[in-house]
Amino acid sequence: KNLFMFKHIHCSDDNVPENIYMGTAITPGVTNAAVQQKDMRSQMEDMILRAQREICDALSKSDNNAKFIVDQWERPSGGGGVSCVLQDSHVFEKAGVNVSVVHGTLSPAAVKQMSARKDLGPGPHHFFAAGISSVVHPRNPMVPTVHFNYRYFEVVGKNGKTSWWFGGGTDLTPYYPNKEDFKHFHSTLKSTCDKHDPKFYPEYKKWCDEYFYIKHRGEARGIGGIFFDDLDDRDPQLVFEFAKDLAATVVPCYMPIVERHKNDGYGLRERTWQLLRRGRYVEFNLVYDRGTKFGLFTPNARIESIFISMPLTARWEYMHEPEEGVCWWWWWW
Amino acid sequence: KNLFMFKHIHCSDDNVPENIYMGTAITPGVTNAAVQQKDMRSQMEDMILRAQREICDALSKSDNNAKFIVDQWERPSGGGGVSCVLQDSHVFEKAGVNVSVVHGTLSPAAVKQMSARKDLGPGPHHFFAAGISSVVHPRNPMVPTVHFNYRYFEVVGKNGKTSWWFGGGTDLTPYYPNKEDFKHFHSTLKSTCDKHDPKFYPEYKKWCDEYFYIKHRGEARGIGGIFFDDLDDRDPQLVFEFAKDLAATVVPCYMPIVERHKNDGYGLRERTWQLLRRGRYVEFNLVYDRGTKFGLFTPNARIESIFISMPLTARWEYMHEPEEGVCWWWWWW
Repeated sequence: KNLFMFKHIHCSDDNVPENIYMGTAITPGVTNAAVQQKDMRSQMEDMILRAQREICDALSKSDNNAKFIVDQWERPSGGGGVSCVLQDSHVFEKAGVNVSVVHGTLSPAAVKQMSARKDLGPGPHHFFAAGISSVVHPRNPMVPTVHFNYRYFEVVGKNGKTSWWFGGGTDLTPYYPNKEDFKHFHSTLKSTCDKHDPKFYPEYKKWCDEYFYIKHRGEARGIGGIFFDDLDDRDPQLVFEFAKDLAATVVPCYMPIVERHKNDGYGLRERTWQLLRRGRYVEFNLVYDRGTKFGLFTPNARIESIFISMPLTARWEYMHEPEEGVCWWWWWW
Repeated sequence: KNLFMFKHIHCSDDNVPENIYMGTAITPGVTNAAVQQKDMRSQMEDMILRAQREICDALSKSDNNAKFIVDQWERPSGGGGVSCVLQDSHVFEKAGVNVSVVHGTLSPAAVKQMSARKDLGPGPHHFFAAGISSVVHPRNPMVPTVHFNYRYFEVVGKNGKTSWWFGGGTDLTPYYPNKEDFKHFHSTLKSTCDKHDPKFYPEYKKWCDEYFYIKHRGEARGIGGIFFDDLDDRDPQLVFEFAKDLAATVVPCYMPIVERHKNDGYGLRERTWQLLRRGRYVEFNLVYDRGTKFGLFTPNARIESIFISMPLTARWEYMHEPEEGVCWWWWWW
């Protein structure tokens, strides 16, 4: 199976050192010195590994100190990653936080997918990509699902010139409406964005709404958040600080909502509705999501890490009619 | 919502006439006379509507005479269909048998998808399509899922010339191996194929194995069956008879397997494994299946009919390791 392509270094059953990361650094050169010298690859790797730790710690704390599965893996063709998963736990039905730092040569399929946006010229293209991505599916239908992803890319294109850019976003998919939660989520994101550029929040909120749209259903996936890609219009260090601040905003954005609702009452009716909406999540991920498709069409991708985003369970009913009070409520958000 | 685009004619709660079809004819001209005169469009429509009835009757009989939901719908831009669904019943968790007879102008996206196989030239292209398609997901994990689809296409392409072809297939996706069942399924299909052309079975079995392959998993979806497309190399009446015979083979192929196992014992372990495999079914349908993608990218397609194929429930576990005896058994089939 595909998995056997990946050298499994250690997992949480082994003796994981209590350190600042969930696993260990992926690139040997990621030392304090390299980070201090503001080498972008090192800074990014260190940032996402620290963010992974911070977010997993917050999720674990909220879930009765549940222990994450930590899988550290190597990619034979360059780089590796750390996948952290909490599965079938009390508060979280499935929470995956994935870091990967990979490099090598882009597959023709990947180049094609990128060429729509970047004029790269004929390959082969050397690339470097470092990112953190996560989907958290709670068990209680009153707690929304959150998704976030922050990534840094370098590609060597025409004339050996290296292009770089950052992308990412954080967005919320609730099952039941709660204006107070939605306001908290969006305003927390807006505060962080505004510190960097007042144009960011309105622009990236719109981008998010457009991106997380399930065309074949004519439905939004959730209530949005922010989404951006190809950000390279200013000093890379400034863009990095923006991505870093956003990664640090995940916990204050999301965890108060979890705390507020994780013990709310619910029954089979709410659970069924949640599973139907998780079906929509699966539809979006498999049909439209760039990251998922990029992964699926990349030879030797680590499929288990890509599918961390999938819910533990999902449901499809023929001609389901949502009950009153639930019915397409996100249309008015 | 998309659904409102479709005029709902009647459903099983109304007074459906006890006739040879589950619903009523879709095209007004489908009379005995037209069928007798061997008009291909009429013959095909009559054949698939009768097959739908026969198959639904067999499924219902096996499921304690459970009553199908029957939705007759019209497509505003031409044609319509009859969708029959048994949902959350005793023997069948979700069984959908869909007939559609549609015509109009192909969307640019649909032309693009077809042009990979047919040299149609620049559009607009008038088309006619009549087909029956079905997925049956039983509740008991010892009963396999079956899928079949038989369709007839006409497209007006270059110089006003009409191309026609038939396509289709029947394939089985078991959750547990049973050599006797597999032998019955394949040999029944082979007998029908051999009556028409001894080359059909070996060729179409191979095609089926290639088609129902989940690339990103490196797994076959099931144990195959037959699959063919673009069949137009002989008199259309002969190809029609082949498709008709295959539609009539669904019941003898599948129902004995249902009867043999529908009361087999199982527990949570088997149910969980079944749901994980249903996750794979969802992955195949959303990522690779031509029919599903054709539907999803067709503006104003009836999404509820397309997603009849989705299981009622599916599951994704991180790093699931199948237990011994279950583990990737289809590799040796």
